[in-house]
Amino acid sequence: MVTKNQIKFIKRLSLKKNRIKYNMFVVEGEKIIKEFINSSYKLEKIYSVNPEKFTGYDSNLISVKELKSISNLKSPNGDLAVFNMVSFTLKNENFYVALDGINDPGNLGTIIRTCEWFGVNQIICSKNSVDCYNSKVIQASMGSLSRVHVFYDDILSFIDSKKMDVYGADIDGDRYDNIKFKSSGIWVFGSESHGISKNIISKIDKKVKIPKSHDNIKTESLNLPISLGIILSKIRL
Amino acid sequence: MVTKNQIKFIKRLSLKKNRIKYNMFVVEGEKIIKEFINSSYKLEKIYSVNPEKFTGYDSNLISVKELKSISNLKSPNGDLAVFNMVSFTLKNENFYVALDGINDPGNLGTIIRTCEWFGVNQIICSKNSVDCYNSKVIQASMGSLSRVHVFYDDILSFIDSKKMDVYGADIDGDRYDNIKFKSSGIWVFGSESHGISKNIISKIDKKVKIPKSHDNIKTESLNLPISLGIILSKIRL
Repeated sequence: MVTKNQIKFIKRLSLKKNRIKYNMFVVEGEKIIKEFINSSYKLEKIYSVNPEKFTGYDSNLISVKELKSISNLKSPNGDLAVFNMVSFTLKNENFYVALDGINDPGNLGTIIRTCEWFGVNQIICSKNSVDCYNSKVIQASMGSLSRVHVFYDDILSFIDSKKMDVYGADIDGDRYDNIKFKSSGIWVFGSESHGISKNIISKIDKKVKIPKSHDNIKTESLNLPISLGIILSKIRL
Repeated sequence: MVTKNQIKFIKRLSLKKNRIKYNMFVVEGEKIIKEFINSSYKLEKIYSVNPEKFTGYDSNLISVKELKSISNLKSPNGDLAVFNMVSFTLKNENFYVALDGINDPGNLGTIIRTCEWFGVNQIICSKNSVDCYNSKVIQASMGSLSRVHVFYDDILSFIDSKKMDVYGADIDGDRYDNIKFKSSGIWVFGSESHGISKNIISKIDKKVKIPKSHDNIKTESLNLPISLGIILSKIRL
């Protein structure tokens, strides 16, 4: 059973400040919950309309009505779990993805999922980026957040701390399909609305763009996760 | 000024059956509205908290509160317009994108935007696909729907009517980066949850997949618009 206090507590976790305060976050859906259980994150509690699905875990019955009152989904799918955050340490790699000021949670989730597909298990986000434990990020990442770790850091300091080539996706760059990339380096992607910040642009060794098929095309920008997916498919396969 | 009847009418347009009945749909946001004005679609009426932005058009004052009551956006941005649908005729091309059972409106909108970037101005959707005049599709397409035309048709009949090579994105296919594609053909993409329907799979000459960077990666699928973006970047640039 779920208590009134637990319901109140889970509702509070929809705000970033409370997730940080309690070091906890909410995951919904049987498949994604099971992926988080099989990850480095530590399960706090599961609430399910069918708790037998999670035998062996702290799984509690919740009514459809109660679940609806705490779910972040339009159509709650029957299961919700609270997990404890883990403090990960950034590993040394020869390839990094850095996101500067990404604010759309669906985009961050899709990027996390795409990074995993292309074997990138760490993402650096500028501190003004959307929180990766936001429910929309978790849902869009389709479980990949349980394996891809997101670090919030100052991107300039991060670049300075590494002696690596820095690439940036930028509309004024050279065509990506004309460039021979190294497989190592830091790749910076800016927000859809503002691109890469000026102070970071100055640190970029090579600006790269994905061109349109021809010059008469009117749309002004490519969706950010798609730009990243095209770049990663070129470098990481 | 906006009347109570107009408010009631615009609310009704959030349902597909009413959009079909009246042959009208709703667009929000100054930039996207202006792109639709400059397209083949015929403007019915604009409602704006600042109607002078649209001088020369049938632009009516609406209060923030009234707008909020009819907007499909969480944070309405001040302008909403009703447009009349147009019955487009499919043009003969040497390259087509066909979507089989796409049901996520955000994905369809992103695909429309990505198709435009890569010079694909027509999309065939199976009849069970999400309606392209759904507000989430229009917002995610970022104005591209004003220039990219979506046709709802039976994909099997469409394939039969063309004597072209048929490609399909499928997890059991050959690596896309090992294949030399023709620039002409029909490319079929299925839904994220069900893939391409069985009866259509049998019509596909070449199944193609985007591989993971290595075999130990756990995520099971790539986001659909990203798969499409990667394929189009390979064929259309």
